[in-house]
Amino acid sequence: MTPQQVAEAVVRKMFENDAASRALGMQVLEVRPGYARVEMRIRPDMLNGHAICHGGLIFSLADSAFAFACNTCNFVTVAASCSIEFLAPVYLNDVLTSEAVERIVKGRTGIYDVSVVNHKEEQVALFRGRCHRSREQVISVSGC
Amino acid sequence: MTPQQVAEAVVRKMFENDAASRALGMQVLEVRPGYARVEMRIRPDMLNGHAICHGGLIFSLADSAFAFACNTCNFVTVAASCSIEFLAPVYLNDVLTSEAVERIVKGRTGIYDVSVVNHKEEQVALFRGRCHRSREQVISVSGC
Amino acid sequence: MTPQQVAEAVVRKMFENDAASRALGMQVLEVRPGYARVEMRIRPDMLNGHAICHGGLIFSLADSAFAFACNTCNFVTVAASCSIEFLAPVYLNDVLTSEAVERIVKGRTGIYDVSVVNHKEEQVALFRGRCHRSREQVISVSGC
Amino acid sequence: MTPQQVAEAVVRKMFENDAASRALGMQVLEVRPGYARVEMRIRPDMLNGHAICHGGLIFSLADSAFAFACNTCNFVTVAASCSIEFLAPVYLNDVLTSEAVERIVKGRTGIYDVSVVNHKEEQVALFRGRCHRSREQVISVSGC
Repeated sequence: MTPQQVAEAVVRKMFENDAASRALGMQVLEVRPGYARVEMRIRPDMLNGHAICHGGLIFSLADSAFAFACNTCNFVTVAASCSIEFLAPVYLNDVLTSEAVERIVKGRTGIYDVSVVNHKEEQVALFRGRCHRSREQVISVSGC
Repeated sequence: MTPQQVAEAVVRKMFENDAASRALGMQVLEVRPGYARVEMRIRPDMLNGHAICHGGLIFSLADSAFAFACNTCNFVTVAASCSIEFLAPVYLNDVLTSEAVERIVKGRTGIYDVSVVNHKEEQVALFRGRCHRSREQVISVSGC
Repeated sequence: MTPQQVAEAVVRKMFENDAASRALGMQVLEVRPGYARVEMRIRPDMLNGHAICHGGLIFSLADSAFAFACNTCNFVTVAASCSIEFLAPVYLNDVLTSEAVERIVKGRTGIYDVSVVNHKEEQVALFRGRCHRSREQVISVSGC
Repeated sequence: MTPQQVAEAVVRKMFENDAASRALGMQVLEVRPGYARVEMRIRPDMLNGHAICHGGLIFSLADSAFAFACNTCNFVTVAASCSIEFLAPVYLNDVLTSEAVERIVKGRTGIYDVSVVNHKEEQVALFRGRCHRSREQVISVSGC
Protein backbone atom coordinates (compact mmCIF):
# COMPACT_ATOMS: atom_id res chain seq x y z
CA MET A 1 0.00 0.00 0.00
CA THR A 2 1.18 3.52 -0.75
CA PRO A 3 1.26 6.13 2.04
CA GLN A 4 -1.85 7.68 0.48
CA GLN A 5 -3.68 4.35 0.57
CA VAL A 6 -2.60 3.75 4.16
CA ALA A 7 -3.79 7.24 5.14
CA GLU A 8 -7.19 6.66 3.56
CA ALA A 9 -7.62 3.18 5.04
CA VAL A 10 -6.66 4.41 8.52
CA VAL A 11 -9.09 7.32 8.47
CA ARG A 12 -11.86 5.17 6.99
CA LYS A 13 -11.49 2.72 9.86
CA MET A 14 -11.19 5.45 12.49
CA PHE A 15 -14.21 7.32 11.20
CA GLU A 16 -16.36 4.15 11.04
CA ASN A 17 -15.67 3.66 14.75
CA ASP A 18 -15.81 7.34 15.71
CA ALA A 19 -19.31 7.59 17.14
CA ALA A 20 -18.69 11.13 18.40
CA SER A 21 -17.64 12.65 15.07
CA ARG A 22 -20.53 10.87 13.34
CA ALA A 23 -23.07 11.97 15.95
CA LEU A 24 -21.91 15.55 15.32
CA GLY A 25 -22.57 15.08 11.59
CA MET A 26 -18.95 15.47 10.49
CA GLN A 27 -17.87 14.43 7.01
CA VAL A 28 -14.31 13.68 5.99
CA LEU A 29 -13.65 15.57 2.76
CA GLU A 30 -10.00 14.79 2.11
CA VAL A 31 -7.13 12.83 3.60
CA ARG A 32 -3.43 12.76 2.78
CA PRO A 33 -0.43 11.68 4.86
CA GLY A 34 -0.26 14.25 7.68
CA TYR A 35 -3.38 16.05 6.47
CA ALA A 36 -7.16 15.93 6.86
CA ARG A 37 -10.09 18.17 5.96
CA VAL A 38 -13.42 17.69 7.73
CA GLU A 39 -16.78 19.46 7.46
CA MET A 40 -19.65 20.02 9.93
CA ARG A 41 -22.96 21.88 9.67
CA ILE A 42 -24.15 23.71 12.79
CA ARG A 43 -27.43 22.26 14.05
CA PRO A 44 -29.85 23.71 16.63
CA ASP A 45 -28.50 21.31 19.27
CA MET A 46 -25.01 22.83 18.86
CA LEU A 47 -25.94 26.31 20.07
CA ASN A 48 -25.05 27.63 23.51
CA GLY A 49 -26.82 30.02 25.87
CA HIS A 50 -25.73 33.04 23.79
CA ALA A 51 -27.41 31.52 20.66
CA ILE A 52 -24.09 30.93 18.90
CA CYS A 53 -22.28 27.64 18.33
CA HIS A 54 -20.84 26.16 21.54
CA GLY A 55 -17.05 26.60 21.46
CA GLY A 56 -16.59 22.97 22.45
CA LEU A 57 -18.17 21.82 19.21
CA ILE A 58 -15.96 24.07 17.09
CA PHE A 59 -13.05 22.60 19.05
CA SER A 60 -14.45 19.08 18.42
CA LEU A 61 -14.39 19.63 14.67
CA ALA A 62 -10.79 20.87 14.78
CA ASP A 63 -9.83 18.02 17.11
CA SER A 64 -11.29 15.42 14.75
CA ALA A 65 -9.38 16.84 11.79
CA PHE A 66 -6.24 16.83 13.97
CA ALA A 67 -6.85 13.22 15.06
CA PHE A 68 -7.36 12.01 11.50
CA ALA A 69 -4.28 13.86 10.25
CA CYS A 70 -1.96 12.63 12.98
CA ASN A 71 -3.04 9.00 12.66
CA THR A 72 -2.60 8.84 8.87
CA CYS A 73 0.80 7.28 9.45
CA ASN A 74 -0.94 4.21 10.96
CA PHE A 75 0.41 4.56 14.49
CA VAL A 76 -2.19 5.10 17.18
CA THR A 77 -1.64 8.74 18.12
CA VAL A 78 -3.50 10.72 20.77
CA ALA A 79 -3.71 14.41 21.67
CA ALA A 80 -1.53 15.60 24.56
CA SER A 81 -2.47 19.26 24.53
CA CYS A 82 -4.34 21.68 22.31
CA SER A 83 -4.98 25.38 22.15
CA ILE A 84 -7.66 27.23 20.25
CA GLU A 85 -8.22 30.87 19.35
CA PHE A 86 -11.83 31.79 18.71
CA LEU A 87 -11.97 34.48 16.04
CA ALA A 88 -15.61 34.93 15.06
CA PRO A 89 -19.00 33.68 16.25
CA VAL A 90 -20.54 30.73 14.44
CA TYR A 91 -24.28 30.60 13.75
CA LEU A 92 -27.00 28.06 13.11
CA ASN A 93 -26.65 26.40 9.69
CA ASP A 94 -23.11 27.66 9.15
CA VAL A 95 -21.04 25.00 7.44
CA LEU A 96 -17.56 24.81 8.96
CA THR A 97 -14.54 23.28 7.29
CA SER A 98 -11.52 22.31 9.31
CA GLU A 99 -8.14 21.61 7.78
CA ALA A 100 -5.35 19.96 9.78
CA VAL A 101 -1.76 20.17 8.56
CA GLU A 102 1.33 18.57 10.06
CA ARG A 103 3.86 21.18 11.11
CA ILE A 104 6.51 18.85 12.51
CA VAL A 105 6.97 15.31 13.76
CA LYS A 106 10.00 14.68 15.97
CA GLY A 107 10.44 11.29 17.55
CA ARG A 108 7.01 10.36 18.84
CA THR A 109 5.73 13.93 19.22
CA GLY A 110 3.92 15.85 16.52
CA ILE A 111 2.61 19.39 16.16
CA TYR A 112 -0.36 20.06 13.88
CA ASP A 113 -2.00 23.33 12.89
CA VAL A 114 -5.71 23.34 12.26
CA SER A 115 -7.82 26.14 10.83
CA VAL A 116 -11.59 26.36 10.89
CA VAL A 117 -13.41 28.48 8.29
CA ASN A 118 -17.09 29.00 7.65
CA HIS A 119 -18.86 28.73 4.28
CA LYS A 120 -18.09 32.41 3.59
CA GLU A 121 -14.38 31.55 3.91
CA GLU A 122 -14.06 33.55 7.15
CA GLN A 123 -11.61 32.13 9.69
CA VAL A 124 -13.57 31.32 12.80
CA ALA A 125 -10.87 29.50 14.80
CA LEU A 126 -7.20 28.58 14.81
CA PHE A 127 -6.15 25.44 16.68
CA ARG A 128 -2.75 23.92 17.45
CA GLY A 129 -2.35 20.40 18.75
CA ARG A 130 0.52 18.39 20.21
CA CYS A 131 0.21 14.60 19.95
CA HIS A 132 2.07 11.55 21.12
CA ARG A 133 2.39 8.45 18.99
CA SER A 134 2.21 4.96 20.45
CA ARG A 135 3.82 1.90 18.85
CA GLU A 136 0.44 0.28 18.16
CA GLN A 137 -0.96 0.28 14.62
CA VAL A 138 -4.43 1.45 13.61
CA ILE A 139 -4.77 -1.05 10.75
CA SER A 140 -2.77 -4.24 10.10
CA VAL A 141 -0.33 -3.10 7.42
CA SER A 142 3.14 -1.57 7.46
CA GLY A 143 3.10 2.05 8.61
CA CYS A 144 5.02 4.89 6.99
CA MET B 1 -30.35 40.54 44.35
CA THR B 2 -27.12 39.38 45.99
CA PRO B 3 -24.14 38.43 43.78
CA GLN B 4 -24.94 34.78 44.57
CA GLN B 5 -28.54 35.21 43.42
CA VAL B 6 -27.39 36.99 40.27
CA ALA B 7 -24.91 34.18 39.55
CA GLU B 8 -27.59 31.53 39.94
CA ALA B 9 -30.17 33.39 37.86
CA VAL B 10 -27.66 34.03 35.07
CA VAL B 11 -26.57 30.41 34.85
CA ARG B 12 -30.17 29.16 35.09
CA LYS B 13 -31.10 31.32 32.09
CA MET B 14 -27.95 30.43 30.14
CA PHE B 15 -28.38 26.72 30.77
CA GLU B 16 -32.06 26.76 29.77
CA ASN B 17 -31.03 28.17 26.40
CA ASP B 18 -27.85 26.12 26.04
CA ALA B 19 -29.02 23.39 23.71
CA ALA B 20 -25.47 22.07 23.26
CA SER B 21 -24.69 21.52 26.95
CA ARG B 22 -28.11 19.94 27.44
CA ALA B 23 -27.76 17.67 24.42
CA LEU B 24 -24.48 16.45 25.90
CA GLY B 25 -26.29 15.61 29.15
CA MET B 26 -24.45 18.13 31.31
CA GLN B 27 -25.76 19.06 34.75
CA VAL B 28 -24.84 22.20 36.64
CA LEU B 29 -23.94 21.13 40.18
CA GLU B 30 -22.90 24.42 41.76
CA VAL B 31 -22.56 28.09 40.88
CA ARG B 32 -20.99 30.98 42.75
CA PRO B 33 -19.70 34.35 41.50
CA GLY B 34 -16.69 33.45 39.33
CA TYR B 35 -17.20 29.74 39.83
CA ALA B 36 -19.12 26.81 38.30
CA ARG B 37 -19.08 23.04 38.64
CA VAL B 38 -20.64 20.91 35.90
CA GLU B 39 -21.01 17.14 35.44
CA MET B 40 -21.30 14.90 32.35
CA ARG B 41 -21.58 11.13 31.92
CA ILE B 42 -19.78 9.62 28.93
CA ARG B 43 -22.25 8.01 26.52
CA PRO B 44 -21.55 5.63 23.62
CA ASP B 45 -22.03 8.50 21.15
CA MET B 46 -19.14 10.38 22.80
CA LEU B 47 -16.44 7.82 21.94
CA ASN B 48 -13.91 8.35 19.18
CA GLY B 49 -12.16 5.96 16.80
CA HIS B 50 -9.82 4.75 19.56
CA ALA B 51 -12.83 3.77 21.78
CA ILE B 52 -12.12 6.52 24.32
CA CYS B 53 -14.01 9.76 24.86
CA HIS B 54 -13.52 12.28 22.03
CA GLY B 55 -11.25 15.07 23.31
CA GLY B 56 -13.63 17.66 21.94
CA LEU B 57 -16.34 16.54 24.33
CA ILE B 58 -14.03 16.70 27.34
CA PHE B 59 -13.16 20.20 26.14
CA SER B 60 -16.88 20.98 25.75
CA LEU B 61 -17.53 20.11 29.38
CA ALA B 62 -14.65 22.33 30.54
CA ASP B 63 -15.77 25.09 28.20
CA SER B 64 -19.32 25.02 29.56
CA ALA B 65 -18.06 25.29 33.15
CA PHE B 66 -15.83 28.16 32.01
CA ALA B 67 -18.73 29.91 30.24
CA PHE B 68 -21.01 29.63 33.25
CA ALA B 69 -18.31 30.85 35.64
CA CYS B 70 -17.30 33.85 33.55
CA ASN B 71 -20.89 35.00 32.97
CA THR B 72 -21.92 34.85 36.65
CA CYS B 73 -21.28 38.58 36.85
CA ASN B 74 -24.18 39.14 34.43
CA PHE B 75 -22.18 40.59 31.57
CA VAL B 76 -22.26 38.62 28.33
CA THR B 77 -18.78 37.14 28.19
CA VAL B 78 -17.32 34.94 25.47
CA ALA B 79 -14.20 32.82 25.15
CA ALA B 80 -11.27 34.35 23.25
CA SER B 81 -8.79 31.50 23.57
CA CYS B 82 -8.47 28.26 25.50
CA SER B 83 -5.86 25.60 26.05
CA ILE B 84 -6.29 22.09 27.33
CA GLU B 85 -3.91 19.43 28.59
CA PHE B 86 -5.20 15.88 28.25
CA LEU B 87 -3.89 13.82 31.17
CA ALA B 88 -5.68 10.48 31.08
CA PRO B 89 -8.07 8.63 28.76
CA VAL B 90 -11.79 8.79 29.55
CA TYR B 91 -14.00 5.75 29.05
CA LEU B 92 -17.64 4.88 28.45
CA ASN B 93 -19.81 5.58 31.51
CA ASP B 94 -17.13 7.62 33.27
CA VAL B 95 -18.74 10.55 35.08
CA LEU B 96 -16.66 13.70 34.64
CA THR B 97 -16.85 16.74 36.87
CA SER B 98 -15.47 20.06 35.70
CA GLU B 99 -14.77 22.94 38.06
CA ALA B 100 -14.08 26.45 36.73
CA VAL B 101 -12.43 29.03 38.98
CA GLU B 102 -11.70 32.68 38.22
CA ARG B 103 -7.99 33.40 38.38
CA ILE B 104 -8.09 37.07 37.49
CA VAL B 105 -10.33 39.65 35.89
CA LYS B 106 -8.64 42.82 34.61
CA GLY B 107 -10.70 45.35 32.71
CA ARG B 108 -12.81 43.31 30.33
CA THR B 109 -10.48 40.31 30.17
CA GLY B 110 -10.66 37.33 32.49
CA ILE B 111 -8.59 34.18 32.98
CA TYR B 112 -10.23 31.06 34.34
CA ASP B 113 -8.72 27.72 35.33
CA VAL B 114 -10.80 24.63 34.82
CA SER B 115 -10.04 21.10 35.98
CA VAL B 116 -11.78 17.94 34.85
CA VAL B 117 -11.76 14.85 37.08
CA ASN B 118 -13.42 11.48 36.68
CA HIS B 119 -15.53 9.67 39.30
CA LYS B 120 -12.37 8.09 40.75
CA GLU B 121 -11.08 11.62 41.42
CA GLU B 122 -8.36 11.26 38.77
CA GLN B 123 -7.48 14.46 36.88
CA VAL B 124 -8.22 13.84 33.23
CA ALA B 125 -7.71 17.35 31.88
CA LEU B 126 -6.58 20.85 32.79
CA PHE B 127 -8.02 23.78 30.86
CA ARG B 128 -7.27 27.50 30.90
CA GLY B 129 -9.54 30.04 29.24
CA ARG B 130 -9.27 33.72 28.41
CA CYS B 131 -12.54 35.58 27.95
CA HIS B 132 -13.73 39.02 26.92
CA ARG B 133 -16.69 40.70 28.54
CA SER B 134 -19.17 42.78 26.56
CA ARG B 135 -21.28 45.56 28.05
CA GLU B 136 -24.52 43.65 27.43
CA GLN B 137 -26.27 41.95 30.36
CA VAL B 138 -27.41 38.33 30.47
CA ILE B 139 -30.45 39.01 32.65
CA SER B 140 -32.21 42.32 33.34
CA VAL B 141 -30.82 43.24 36.77
CA SER B 142 -27.81 45.21 37.96
CA GLY B 143 -24.57 43.29 37.45
CA CYS B 144 -21.73 43.03 39.94
CA MET C 1 4.90 56.55 2.81
CA THR C 2 4.07 53.09 1.46
CA PRO C 3 3.06 50.33 3.88
CA GLN C 4 6.54 48.84 3.37
CA GLN C 5 8.20 52.13 4.30
CA VAL C 6 5.95 52.49 7.34
CA ALA C 7 6.78 48.94 8.45
CA GLU C 8 10.51 49.59 8.15
CA ALA C 9 10.35 52.94 9.93
CA VAL C 10 8.28 51.51 12.78
CA VAL C 11 10.60 48.58 13.37
CA ARG C 12 13.69 50.79 13.07
CA LYS C 13 12.33 53.05 15.80
CA MET C 14 11.18 50.16 17.99
CA PHE C 15 14.48 48.34 17.68
CA GLU C 16 16.51 51.46 18.48
CA ASN C 17 14.61 51.72 21.76
CA ASP C 18 14.45 48.00 22.45
CA ALA C 19 17.24 47.62 24.98
CA ALA C 20 16.28 44.01 25.72
CA SER C 21 16.44 42.71 22.15
CA ARG C 22 19.72 44.57 21.62
CA ALA C 23 21.23 43.27 24.87
CA LEU C 24 20.42 39.75 23.64
CA GLY C 25 22.29 40.46 20.41
CA MET C 26 19.29 40.21 18.11
CA GLN C 27 19.43 41.47 14.54
CA VAL C 28 16.43 42.34 12.42
CA LEU C 29 16.94 40.67 9.04
CA GLU C 30 13.73 41.54 7.23
CA VAL C 31 10.50 43.41 7.78
CA ARG C 32 7.31 43.60 5.74
CA PRO C 33 3.77 44.57 6.73
CA GLY C 34 2.67 41.83 9.15
CA TYR C 35 6.03 40.07 8.95
CA ALA C 36 9.45 40.12 10.65
CA ARG C 37 12.53 37.91 10.63
CA VAL C 38 15.05 38.21 13.48
CA GLU C 39 18.32 36.45 14.26
CA MET C 40 20.18 35.69 17.51
CA ARG C 41 23.40 33.82 18.28
CA ILE C 42 23.45 31.75 21.49
CA ARG C 43 26.08 33.08 23.89
CA PRO C 44 27.49 31.43 27.05
CA ASP C 45 25.30 33.68 29.21
CA MET C 46 22.19 32.23 27.54
CA LEU C 47 22.69 28.65 28.75
CA ASN C 48 20.68 27.13 31.58
CA GLY C 49 21.55 24.57 34.25
CA HIS C 50 21.32 21.71 31.73
CA ALA C 51 23.93 23.39 29.46
CA ILE C 52 21.39 24.16 26.73
CA CYS C 53 19.86 27.49 25.80
CA HIS C 54 17.38 28.78 28.39
CA GLY C 55 13.86 28.38 27.00
CA GLY C 56 13.05 31.93 28.01
CA LEU C 57 15.62 33.29 25.57
CA ILE C 58 14.30 31.21 22.69
CA PHE C 59 10.89 32.59 23.63
CA SER C 60 12.36 36.11 23.75
CA LEU C 61 13.61 35.82 20.19
CA ALA C 62 10.21 34.63 18.97
CA ASP C 63 8.47 37.31 21.01
CA SER C 64 10.62 40.06 19.48
CA ALA C 65 9.86 38.86 15.95
CA PHE C 66 6.17 38.76 16.92
CA ALA C 67 6.32 42.29 18.40
CA PHE C 68 8.01 43.73 15.31
CA ALA C 69 5.56 41.99 12.96
CA CYS C 70 2.43 43.06 14.82
CA ASN C 71 3.52 46.71 15.11
CA THR C 72 4.39 47.11 11.42
CA CYS C 73 0.98 48.68 10.90
CA ASN C 74 2.07 51.60 13.11
CA PHE C 75 -0.41 51.05 15.94
CA VAL C 76 1.13 50.30 19.31
CA THR C 77 0.32 46.62 19.77
CA VAL C 78 1.17 44.43 22.75
CA ALA C 79 1.09 40.70 23.40
CA ALA C 80 -1.91 39.36 25.29
CA SER C 81 -0.97 35.68 25.35
CA CYS C 82 1.57 33.40 23.74
CA SER C 83 2.27 29.70 23.57
CA ILE C 84 5.46 27.95 22.59
CA GLU C 85 6.33 24.37 21.70
CA PHE C 86 9.96 23.46 22.28
CA LEU C 87 11.03 20.94 19.65
CA ALA C 88 14.80 20.52 19.95
CA PRO C 89 17.55 21.64 22.31
CA VAL C 90 19.59 24.69 21.33
CA TYR C 91 23.33 24.82 21.97
CA LEU C 92 26.09 27.36 22.47
CA ASN C 93 26.90 29.27 19.26
CA ASP C 94 23.79 28.07 17.47
CA VAL C 95 22.38 30.86 15.33
CA LEU C 96 18.61 30.99 15.57
CA THR C 97 16.31 32.67 13.08
CA SER C 98 12.78 33.53 14.00
CA GLU C 99 10.12 34.38 11.45
CA ALA C 100 6.80 35.92 12.48
CA VAL C 101 3.84 35.84 10.10
CA GLU C 102 0.40 37.37 10.55
CA ARG C 103 -2.30 34.73 10.48
CA ILE C 104 -5.28 36.98 11.04
CA VAL C 105 -6.19 40.44 12.30
CA LYS C 106 -9.81 40.97 13.36
CA GLY C 107 -10.80 44.25 14.92
CA ARG C 108 -8.02 45.04 17.36
CA THR C 109 -6.93 41.44 17.92
CA GLY C 110 -4.26 39.70 15.87
CA ILE C 111 -2.87 36.17 15.77
CA TYR C 112 0.71 35.62 14.61
CA ASP C 113 2.62 32.39 14.02
CA VAL C 114 6.32 32.39 14.69
CA SER C 115 8.82 29.66 13.90
CA VAL C 116 12.36 29.39 15.23
CA VAL C 117 14.97 27.42 13.28
CA ASN C 118 18.65 26.90 13.91
CA HIS C 119 21.47 27.36 11.37
CA LYS C 120 21.02 23.75 10.22
CA GLU C 121 17.42 24.65 9.29
CA GLU C 122 16.04 22.46 12.10
CA GLN C 123 12.83 23.71 13.72
CA VAL C 124 13.59 24.30 17.38
CA ALA C 125 10.37 26.01 18.44
CA LEU C 126 6.91 26.98 17.26
CA PHE C 127 5.23 29.99 18.85
CA ARG C 128 1.78 31.50 18.50
CA GLY C 129 0.91 34.93 19.82
CA ARG C 130 -2.29 36.87 20.32
CA CYS C 131 -1.98 40.65 20.46
CA HIS C 132 -4.14 43.66 21.12
CA ARG C 133 -3.76 46.90 19.22
CA SER C 134 -4.14 50.28 20.86
CA ARG C 135 -5.14 53.45 19.02
CA GLU C 136 -1.74 55.07 19.65
CA GLN C 137 0.79 55.29 16.81
CA VAL C 138 4.41 54.15 16.97
CA ILE C 139 5.68 56.83 14.58
CA SER C 140 4.01 60.08 13.52
CA VAL C 141 2.62 59.17 10.09
CA SER C 142 -0.64 57.70 8.85
CA GLY C 143 -0.90 53.98 9.65
CA CYS C 144 -2.13 51.29 7.28
CA MET D 1 18.67 12.81 52.09
CA THR D 2 15.07 13.90 52.56
CA PRO D 3 13.02 15.03 49.55
CA GLN D 4 13.44 18.60 50.81
CA GLN D 5 17.25 18.21 50.94
CA VAL D 6 17.27 16.66 47.46
CA ALA D 7 15.14 19.52 46.13
CA GLU D 8 17.49 22.12 47.60
CA ALA D 9 20.65 20.37 46.40
CA VAL D 10 19.26 19.96 42.88
CA VAL D 11 18.26 23.59 42.55
CA ARG D 12 21.55 24.77 44.10
CA LYS D 13 23.46 22.81 41.46
CA MET D 14 21.18 23.87 38.61
CA PHE D 15 21.31 27.53 39.58
CA GLU D 16 25.13 27.50 39.92
CA ASN D 17 25.32 26.33 36.31
CA ASP D 18 22.44 28.44 35.03
CA ALA D 19 24.30 31.30 33.41
CA ALA D 20 21.13 32.71 31.88
CA SER D 21 19.10 33.00 35.09
CA ARG D 22 22.15 34.51 36.83
CA ALA D 23 22.81 36.97 34.02
CA LEU D 24 19.20 38.13 34.38
CA GLY D 25 19.77 38.74 38.09
CA MET D 26 17.35 36.10 39.33
CA GLN D 27 17.41 34.94 42.93
CA VAL D 28 15.93 31.69 44.19
CA LEU D 29 13.85 32.52 47.26
CA GLU D 30 12.38 29.15 48.17
CA VAL D 31 12.40 25.56 46.99
CA ARG D 32 10.32 22.56 47.99
CA PRO D 33 9.57 19.30 46.17
CA GLY D 34 7.50 20.36 43.15
CA TYR D 35 7.76 24.04 44.04
CA ALA D 36 10.05 27.03 43.47
CA ARG D 37 9.84 30.79 44.03
CA VAL D 38 12.22 33.08 42.14
CA GLU D 39 12.68 36.85 42.08
CA MET D 40 13.99 39.29 39.43
CA ARG D 41 14.36 43.08 39.36
CA ILE D 42 13.67 44.80 36.05
CA ARG D 43 16.79 46.54 34.75
CA PRO D 44 17.12 49.11 31.94
CA ASP D 45 18.44 46.40 29.61
CA MET D 46 15.19 44.45 30.04
CA LEU D 47 12.91 47.09 28.49
CA ASN D 48 11.49 46.78 24.99
CA GLY D 49 10.64 49.34 22.32
CA HIS D 50 7.48 50.40 24.17
CA ALA D 51 9.51 51.20 27.36
CA ILE D 52 8.02 48.29 29.30
CA CYS D 53 9.65 45.00 30.25
CA HIS D 54 10.18 42.68 27.27
CA GLY D 55 7.65 39.85 27.49
CA GLY D 56 10.39 37.33 26.87
CA LEU D 57 12.10 38.25 30.11
CA ILE D 58 8.89 37.92 32.13
CA PHE D 59 8.53 34.52 30.47
CA SER D 60 12.17 33.72 31.33
CA LEU D 61 11.53 34.34 35.01
CA ALA D 62 8.44 32.09 34.98
CA ASP D 63 10.33 29.47 32.95
CA SER D 64 13.20 29.40 35.47
CA ALA D 65 10.79 28.92 38.38
CA PHE D 66 9.12 26.15 36.36
CA ALA D 67 12.47 24.50 35.57
CA PHE D 68 13.59 24.54 39.21
CA ALA D 69 10.24 23.20 40.43
CA CYS D 70 10.04 20.36 37.94
CA ASN D 71 13.62 19.21 38.53
CA THR D 72 13.33 19.10 42.34
CA CYS D 73 12.70 15.36 42.09
CA ASN D 74 16.25 14.94 40.76
CA PHE D 75 15.37 13.70 37.29
CA VAL D 76 16.54 15.88 34.42
CA THR D 77 13.29 17.40 33.20
CA VAL D 78 12.83 19.81 30.29
CA ALA D 79 9.99 21.97 29.06
CA ALA D 80 7.92 20.63 26.18
CA SER D 81 5.44 23.47 25.83
CA CYS D 82 4.44 26.57 27.72
CA SER D 83 1.76 29.21 27.52
CA ILE D 84 1.69 32.63 29.10
CA GLU D 85 -1.01 35.23 29.64
CA PHE D 86 0.28 38.78 30.00
CA LEU D 87 -1.98 40.65 32.42
CA ALA D 88 -0.30 43.97 33.17
CA PRO D 89 2.72 45.94 31.95
CA VAL D 90 5.94 45.68 33.94
CA TYR D 91 8.15 48.73 34.44
CA LEU D 92 11.77 49.58 35.19
CA ASN D 93 12.77 48.66 38.76
CA ASP D 94 9.68 46.53 39.36
CA VAL D 95 10.59 43.48 41.39
CA LEU D 96 8.82 40.40 40.07
CA THR D 97 8.28 37.21 42.01
CA SER D 98 7.42 34.00 40.23
CA GLU D 99 5.99 30.98 42.00
CA ALA D 100 5.84 27.57 40.29
CA VAL D 101 3.55 24.86 41.66
CA GLU D 102 3.16 21.27 40.45
CA ARG D 103 -0.38 20.60 39.29
CA ILE D 104 0.08 16.99 38.24
CA VAL D 105 2.76 14.50 37.34
CA LYS D 106 1.65 11.45 35.35
CA GLY D 107 4.24 9.03 34.11
CA ARG D 108 7.03 11.19 32.74
CA THR D 109 4.86 14.21 31.99
CA GLY D 110 4.21 17.03 34.42
CA ILE D 111 2.04 20.16 34.38
CA TYR D 112 3.09 23.18 36.43
CA ASP D 113 1.30 26.46 37.05
CA VAL D 114 3.40 29.55 37.49
CA SER D 115 2.24 33.00 38.57
CA VAL D 116 4.22 36.21 38.30
CA VAL D 117 3.40 39.14 40.59
CA ASN D 118 5.05 42.51 41.01
CA HIS D 119 6.12 44.11 44.30
CA LYS D 120 2.64 45.63 44.68
CA GLU D 121 1.23 42.08 44.63
CA GLU D 122 -0.41 42.65 41.25
CA GLN D 123 -0.57 39.60 38.96
CA VAL D 124 1.39 40.46 35.83
CA ALA D 125 1.42 37.04 34.16
CA LEU D 126 0.07 33.51 34.40
CA PHE D 127 2.12 30.69 32.88
CA ARG D 128 1.46 26.99 32.43
CA GLY D 129 4.19 24.54 31.49
CA ARG D 130 4.24 20.93 30.36
CA CYS D 131 7.50 19.06 30.93
CA HIS D 132 9.01 15.69 30.13
CA ARG D 133 11.26 13.86 32.57
CA SER D 134 14.27 11.89 31.42
CA ARG D 135 15.79 8.99 33.36
CA GLU D 136 19.03 10.91 34.01
CA GLN D 137 19.66 12.38 37.47
CA VAL D 138 20.66 15.98 38.19
CA ILE D 139 22.78 15.11 41.25
CA SER D 140 24.22 11.73 42.29
CA VAL D 141 21.77 10.60 44.97
CA SER D 142 18.54 8.61 44.92
CA GLY D 143 15.65 10.64 43.49
CA CYS D 144 12.11 10.75 44.86
